[in-house]
Amino acid sequence: MNSEEIKKYIRDIPDFPEKGVIFRDITTVLNNGEVFKAVIDALTEEVRKMNPDFIAAVDSRGFIIAAPIAYTLGLPFVPIRKPGKLPYDTYAESYSLEYGTNTVEIHTDAMPKGKRGVIADDLIATGGTLAAAVKLIERIGCEVVGVAAFIELLDLKGRDLLKDYNVFTLVKY
Amino acid sequence: MNSEEIKKYIRDIPDFPEKGVIFRDITTVLNNGEVFKAVIDALTEEVRKMNPDFIAAVDSRGFIIAAPIAYTLGLPFVPIRKPGKLPYDTYAESYSLEYGTNTVEIHTDAMPKGKRGVIADDLIATGGTLAAAVKLIERIGCEVVGVAAFIELLDLKGRDLLKDYNVFTLVKY
Repeated sequence: MNSEEIKKYIRDIPDFPEKGVIFRDITTVLNNGEVFKAVIDALTEEVRKMNPDFIAAVDSRGFIIAAPIAYTLGLPFVPIRKPGKLPYDTYAESYSLEYGTNTVEIHTDAMPKGKRGVIADDLIATGGTLAAAVKLIERIGCEVVGVAAFIELLDLKGRDLLKDYNVFTLVKY
Repeated sequence: MNSEEIKKYIRDIPDFPEKGVIFRDITTVLNNGEVFKAVIDALTEEVRKMNPDFIAAVDSRGFIIAAPIAYTLGLPFVPIRKPGKLPYDTYAESYSLEYGTNTVEIHTDAMPKGKRGVIADDLIATGGTLAAAVKLIERIGCEVVGVAAFIELLDLKGRDLLKDYNVFTLVKY
């Protein structure tokens, strides 16, 4: 199953989460075992080429994509989460949204210094969350050797924020 | 690697999220590729015996455990989420906490009627969230043929709320 065939299983939801936005709903991909497997297999193949020591992801849809990739490659999984969710010492990184800011956190001891990480996610939109995740991984002394996402919204130019990194996306709008 | 060996990788965090509670931190399991794989392999083996048509999970730590199981078995993955996160029509189920209530939602069309589901999670504590997830799966006309969790906190008697269901847990406290 190639990416054009996979794309047909993504459901468009008009006016979600607000008027004028078309939300790309991946639950219709996830609830088909064959299509879900095809997505993870295609992303895993690209992530393997990036040769990482660990896979990181931002909660919570990112976890659905990244955890099977980490498991398949036998690699550690590093969760990056909203404030207050990680129980040990954390570093935090804030980033701007259209209105207000968001913050994400990583455990200070999530990985030993010098390890190579790939961030896997369901979606690259503005790239703000992913750029913050990159900073957190660098903050713990690790290197980001790639970003792999299921969907990319080209109009939002998320790649510009990630221009110094190797970015792979499977389906583009 | 057996469950006693796996247990050594779980980190105890005293007084989180509040004074007097010992939080069982699984990030120290996840950030070891070998141990993470052992956990998923052990749970997958038990879930396979339950012979489900799909795997469901509640965000967000549940996603980290359940998504690799669904992927490995080639099965659909059904996310159950906090209110407002799922973009299509949903059913909602509320349940009591020590203070206040929580609500979780499922897409009304998450699975065709009559399908057999297993809920996979990181933790069974009071069982409140899992019992709500069970109700949501039954609400869409499906059957819950099992619950599989990485950790069980025996003192909180979550199994009592799930007594009509086949419950497997890997590590017990």
